[in-house]
Amino acid sequence: MSRTVLVILNQPSLDTPAHHSGASEYALVDPAVPHLNVLDLAATRGDGIFESLSITAGRPHAIDAHLRRFAASARKLDLPAPDLNAWRDAIHAVVAELDPVAEAVVKIVMSRGVEGDVKPTGWAYAWPSPDYRAAREDGISVITLDRGYRHDIEQTAPWLLTGAKTLSYAINRAVLREAAKRGADDVIFVSSDGFILEGPTSSVLFRRANAILTPGTGLGILEGTTQGDLFAWARTRGMETGFELLTPAQLAESDAIWLVSSGRQAAPVREIDGVPHTIDRELSAAMNAFLLDRTR
Amino acid sequence: MSRTVLVILNQPSLDTPAHHSGASEYALVDPAVPHLNVLDLAATRGDGIFESLSITAGRPHAIDAHLRRFAASARKLDLPAPDLNAWRDAIHAVVAELDPVAEAVVKIVMSRGVEGDVKPTGWAYAWPSPDYRAAREDGISVITLDRGYRHDIEQTAPWLLTGAKTLSYAINRAVLREAAKRGADDVIFVSSDGFILEGPTSSVLFRRANAILTPGTGLGILEGTTQGDLFAWARTRGMETGFELLTPAQLAESDAIWLVSSGRQAAPVREIDGVPHTIDRELSAAMNAFLLDRTR
Repeated sequence: MSRTVLVILNQPSLDTPAHHSGASEYALVDPAVPHLNVLDLAATRGDGIFESLSITAGRPHAIDAHLRRFAASARKLDLPAPDLNAWRDAIHAVVAELDPVAEAVVKIVMSRGVEGDVKPTGWAYAWPSPDYRAAREDGISVITLDRGYRHDIEQTAPWLLTGAKTLSYAINRAVLREAAKRGADDVIFVSSDGFILEGPTSSVLFRRANAILTPGTGLGILEGTTQGDLFAWARTRGMETGFELLTPAQLAESDAIWLVSSGRQAAPVREIDGVPHTIDRELSAAMNAFLLDRTR
Repeated sequence: MSRTVLVILNQPSLDTPAHHSGASEYALVDPAVPHLNVLDLAATRGDGIFESLSITAGRPHAIDAHLRRFAASARKLDLPAPDLNAWRDAIHAVVAELDPVAEAVVKIVMSRGVEGDVKPTGWAYAWPSPDYRAAREDGISVITLDRGYRHDIEQTAPWLLTGAKTLSYAINRAVLREAAKRGADDVIFVSSDGFILEGPTSSVLFRRANAILTPGTGLGILEGTTQGDLFAWARTRGMETGFELLTPAQLAESDAIWLVSSGRQAAPVREIDGVPHTIDRELSAAMNAFLLDRTR
């Protein structure tokens, strides 16, 4: 077992040939050694897709929802369909090899492969999570930033790949640097026509009285796997759930706000654009207890 | 000498440590062997920059303009400043090792490096160009596609990294697939407020009487190195040059249109959105003769 674990898939898609005929489904390899060609389209064009799954007690969370979204991202990019059985096996394989830790993350990546070739490249990598307790308990400060696109971009310009989780994430990194420059921890994207969208690596949730809401899908944003599980859980507690398009001013009037994602789970927002916001410590704690205790 | 050539830089930026202390400036390596870690931010986040230079008769074109733009892209991404002397040496090194061919391309790439590390990864890769004669002589068909951003996005939302040549190019690839689905060769991006921008890998030039024009910079588009050289050349022939913001309808009224870029050079546009456009064969031939004969 190891502190970090990497497997390379032999045949990430059944639509394309295996890399090594007759080889096993995946190979456990040393993450410190180079495994990618410089012509891999992951590296030269950010041309591929990924998912990050959280792991507690050796159990990957929301694996079905992640694999479903992985396949949906592949379709948006006209990639070969990922062989979800092979990817599921790879996820379980890296988790099985990982040193026992309270929390870990598995990232799965599928690129279009080496330029000029037809075989996608696929790998799964697992590592221990950083300590997210401060973010979960005391909250995070966020800024809102213009995403540049209208809220209906996914319908009007599908070639912009909004709603797909691609490897072209330079913007998602740049906005976190912008947040850091302004002394904030994270970002909420706003559409060019003024609607709340999502974080660069998270979904936005908000509470209004007994209802938990999120802007919803079809806005050029990702369908949140953590958001999906939280909605199902909230309904079991008698809360309402729903989708609502809203402005930053309307978000600021909600009773509580969270950025939710695999890994960090539910991070209550304690400040937006420099203005303090109430955090719901009790509900945040219940959310995180549920999320970390998921058995699938 | 080889058909394709790869060098890995030892110290892509003087702001950060060398990868191997005391090693030479670059290492000539086998391109068929993996050289990238799966945690390299080039591969996981498209978090880096690149340039592509055309080569004829062993001479890289517009190397100063490319290196200047490379450095400008690094600044936009808050990357360590590339050591331009080292990059220049690397470009000349791959060109010197390349089998003699009429035309070739060198691509230089600098990523933020392996996640958690502080050392950028850098490489230069050279390969023979495909045969672009048909595109240069008979022209290309293009479609216009919404880029989703307003034409002033670079000023209003610099965190979206427009105007930087990043490795997050999944959209630039997706629009070429969209063009292929519609039976076209290439794409001209239009801003969400209706102005002509650029191609996914080229600048848009157009002729009106004796003037050669381009939409210009500051529109969230790249400053074209080929466009820059063509403008200087056009002025030596007594033509006027200039910048003009214009709509697709205005572009369609121009006397001739080109997409210009390193590699393919000047490709006259023979059809836009299914409507035939006049191509200026004589001027196109003169442009390409000039571009391919550049000595620097």
